[in-house]
Amino acid sequence: MSIVTSKGPTVVDALLRANALQPLAPAFRDAGRTTTYAELFEDVRRAARLLEERGAVCGERVALAAENGYQYLVWTFAAAWCGAVLVPLNWRLAAPEIGGLFDLVSPRLAVVQWEFAALVEAASARARQRIACVVDHARAALPSERRAAVHEDDTAHLYCTSGTTGEPKGVELTHRNVFQHALCAAVELGLGDRDVWGHVAPMFHLADAWATVAITLVGGVHVALPRFEARAALDLFERERVTVSNLVPTMLALMVAEPDARTRDLSAFRLVLSGGASIAPSTVRAVEETFRCEYVQTYGMTETSPYLTLSRLGPTERALPEEERFRLRARTGRPFLGVELEVRGPDGRPVPRDDRSVGEIVVRAATVMRGYWQRPDLTAAVVQDGWLATGDLARIDARGFVEIVDRKKDMIVTGGENVYTTEVEHALAAHPDVLEVAVFGLPHAVWGETVCAAVVPRAGRVLDTQALAAHCRERLAGYKCPREFRVLAALPRTGTGKIAKRLLRDPGAAVE
Amino acid sequence: MSIVTSKGPTVVDALLRANALQPLAPAFRDAGRTTTYAELFEDVRRAARLLEERGAVCGERVALAAENGYQYLVWTFAAAWCGAVLVPLNWRLAAPEIGGLFDLVSPRLAVVQWEFAALVEAASARARQRIACVVDHARAALPSERRAAVHEDDTAHLYCTSGTTGEPKGVELTHRNVFQHALCAAVELGLGDRDVWGHVAPMFHLADAWATVAITLVGGVHVALPRFEARAALDLFERERVTVSNLVPTMLALMVAEPDARTRDLSAFRLVLSGGASIAPSTVRAVEETFRCEYVQTYGMTETSPYLTLSRLGPTERALPEEERFRLRARTGRPFLGVELEVRGPDGRPVPRDDRSVGEIVVRAATVMRGYWQRPDLTAAVVQDGWLATGDLARIDARGFVEIVDRKKDMIVTGGENVYTTEVEHALAAHPDVLEVAVFGLPHAVWGETVCAAVVPRAGRVLDTQALAAHCRERLAGYKCPREFRVLAALPRTGTGKIAKRLLRDPGAAVE
Repeated sequence: MSIVTSKGPTVVDALLRANALQPLAPAFRDAGRTTTYAELFEDVRRAARLLEERGAVCGERVALAAENGYQYLVWTFAAAWCGAVLVPLNWRLAAPEIGGLFDLVSPRLAVVQWEFAALVEAASARARQRIACVVDHARAALPSERRAAVHEDDTAHLYCTSGTTGEPKGVELTHRNVFQHALCAAVELGLGDRDVWGHVAPMFHLADAWATVAITLVGGVHVALPRFEARAALDLFERERVTVSNLVPTMLALMVAEPDARTRDLSAFRLVLSGGASIAPSTVRAVEETFRCEYVQTYGMTETSPYLTLSRLGPTERALPEEERFRLRARTGRPFLGVELEVRGPDGRPVPRDDRSVGEIVVRAATVMRGYWQRPDLTAAVVQDGWLATGDLARIDARGFVEIVDRKKDMIVTGGENVYTTEVEHALAAHPDVLEVAVFGLPHAVWGETVCAAVVPRAGRVLDTQALAAHCRERLAGYKCPREFRVLAALPRTGTGKIAKRLLRDPGAAVE
Repeated sequence: MSIVTSKGPTVVDALLRANALQPLAPAFRDAGRTTTYAELFEDVRRAARLLEERGAVCGERVALAAENGYQYLVWTFAAAWCGAVLVPLNWRLAAPEIGGLFDLVSPRLAVVQWEFAALVEAASARARQRIACVVDHARAALPSERRAAVHEDDTAHLYCTSGTTGEPKGVELTHRNVFQHALCAAVELGLGDRDVWGHVAPMFHLADAWATVAITLVGGVHVALPRFEARAALDLFERERVTVSNLVPTMLALMVAEPDARTRDLSAFRLVLSGGASIAPSTVRAVEETFRCEYVQTYGMTETSPYLTLSRLGPTERALPEEERFRLRARTGRPFLGVELEVRGPDGRPVPRDDRSVGEIVVRAATVMRGYWQRPDLTAAVVQDGWLATGDLARIDARGFVEIVDRKKDMIVTGGENVYTTEVEHALAAHPDVLEVAVFGLPHAVWGETVCAAVVPRAGRVLDTQALAAHCRERLAGYKCPREFRVLAALPRTGTGKIAKRLLRDPGAAVE
């Protein structure tokens, strides 16, 4: 063959580059202690040697259970060096759930932070075969000398999604998926070697984990908070002069509500990213006033490495009046670099950009996963002709800003009318006595489904469901108003913190 | 198959993105007239319709002969829209040379700026088959509605290298090659929608042409100078508030020498890129003093889309004393993002980083060409196991900064000693009476080769070759000193402006 096959970069190339270009620059900082890229590279190769000695070579799975921190960087790149497939574990899951993931992906070994040793041992005991554990500070005496021959289309990361439906699935992301996302994110967000990334959302989740590779690629500095706590996060941001981080809206709301939030010196911050849930324009305003920098809403999924849209403003939008800018920044956003995105109506054709017609978001990109681990049937169900169906329903405006209105499976059909639960939730969330709300459908003999709302009152308030019903009737068409209200002390959530609507519909269902 | 095949972006996706995100933002500016991205997109689709009507569909070659300007953008993206392969023509070549390129790649048609109609007609008349011509401002009435189904591994651009050796070759760059380079360059150089790129070096050459895609990708503004002239370039930079451009050192030297260069308002400039020849630290200083911004030396080749190294400084180098910074910025540089680079000695192993040992630069990257057009033999001669041998000899220092010392084929072996012509040229260029110099080897019965220098005197000076010989003896080891001097009025150059050493060695040789 005379035609050259492209040899694209792999995950470990991000670290090799930082080590080659700036070995003495800080890779990780923690309360006065700085680790350089040369030191990180050395630690990675010692960890890799240990993995090699335990047989975690090309294609073998290595599970990782660790809080946010330096160790997470080390093992991410150590696995990549060996050509092993990293399986990040959500340590909030229970032992039987983790045991189920072990059965799914059969890791060669698990690297475990001391605090999670008992959890992982218990999980291993419940799995079909026991998993060898390595405590995360273990290192070989000699660094590995030779990186594995890894191709860009080999699997780098295997994320086990809990999601909110059915059995667990393993999302296979290739080295190219991960590297392409890092490149595109660096361009979109203008990441560079002056950036300091705050790992505050869990690193076992892609919303933060993508930055492990991207920030290394550009030679920026990593800082981390082991577990989220609002005050500690603000301390970290202030002390380490963090410039960019991706948080979930709940974290932002808690930080903004801290009494001294606005007197903190967050002047280094240039970009607050957030996603995983919709956000109100008023919250965007509060965030920008606290952080005094740009807010960007993100939308993505594990299957797409993860970003699919960002609410970044272009030159035209930056010139709009302030209120309009806050409104646009609160929207789901426009396609992430390298992502082809369509909002397809029931006829399979793109819906008009009238911000009213609703369709499903489908995407195509080099960041779309290789597939679900050993489940070609599941892969084929969501990816056709290279287009991945997200299962998210959205409308799109004339500027191309998408706004998600519901998960396809959460949408309620009542008397032939579509009700998007997000719209009803937003109306209820505006009530001063409501802390949290989740709207879902219940089967109904006449209407097919009927609208039901689970509401959590604010501390010290009592919810009057008649008043809530009246509140809804003022704001929503009659068929959208809940026929039933359930007042709860808290909403049921999945292991990754998403509201488990499935459990609301069917309290007996298993939620992983 | 359940595994998803990556569908990466193609050239036209850069334009689709700019049109989707910022249709009303300027794509091109020229003396007060602004063309928006929406208008460019419309023009591209009209041009594409015309190409389609002439049968220039998937895989067909479309030659383009045009000066720098808006038309160049239009036809670049129009060809990509149709899936046609763009063949940029160097209009400095003579008709028989262009005829030879037509025979090589047999284009379906040629898009020609009016000024080059006679040249291309004459070339076509000499080619084996006549090429249909389209004058570049022609447009169809209706825009093309449907872009061709193009895969990222399809060929996007076919550059016919004249080089300085032998027969012409067609370098096939795929959509992925081009898009990957655009992404990596955007990250390396921090390109964004506030950038204004000055197309001043010829757009038919990749040193500038890569920015056609990259600047569109980030939604920046293109401005162009039809043909280089120092004063006009400074006018353009000042009037359009250009922020970044890639120039050749000769252009920079001419601009810096303009009497009013230092009083121009070039304050918008943030990055001056240059390559194609080595540059003296003193010139780097003069450039930075005139442009008052960062200078970055670039090294690349058409076969690699093109960048292979940049002399960008990392955080550690930015803290060095000024003189050291200028010295590093004048070096060839460190690997471009996504490029694996080794300097391999005669034994095939990387040379030590002692800045003395010399080896050949070999590279591997997703930006390495698909191959030479219909010449698997030539492709196999330079690419092995995905590694491309550049034919450039270099040394590498402890910081990883490469410095090219010679083309492999220009290196002189005299009496068993290697003489790198660049070193001898640098010594001679330091003489106050020397304007230009080229050093080359001539066959010698005893020594194998002997060192010879062709020198051009500065205006009004007379060169004393005995004084030159003494000048060399003060600066160079005896075996490196030229045994023969030839005083010329000008150095012979190839079509792309490189010095034709082949013609110096053998005045009867053909130079394309």
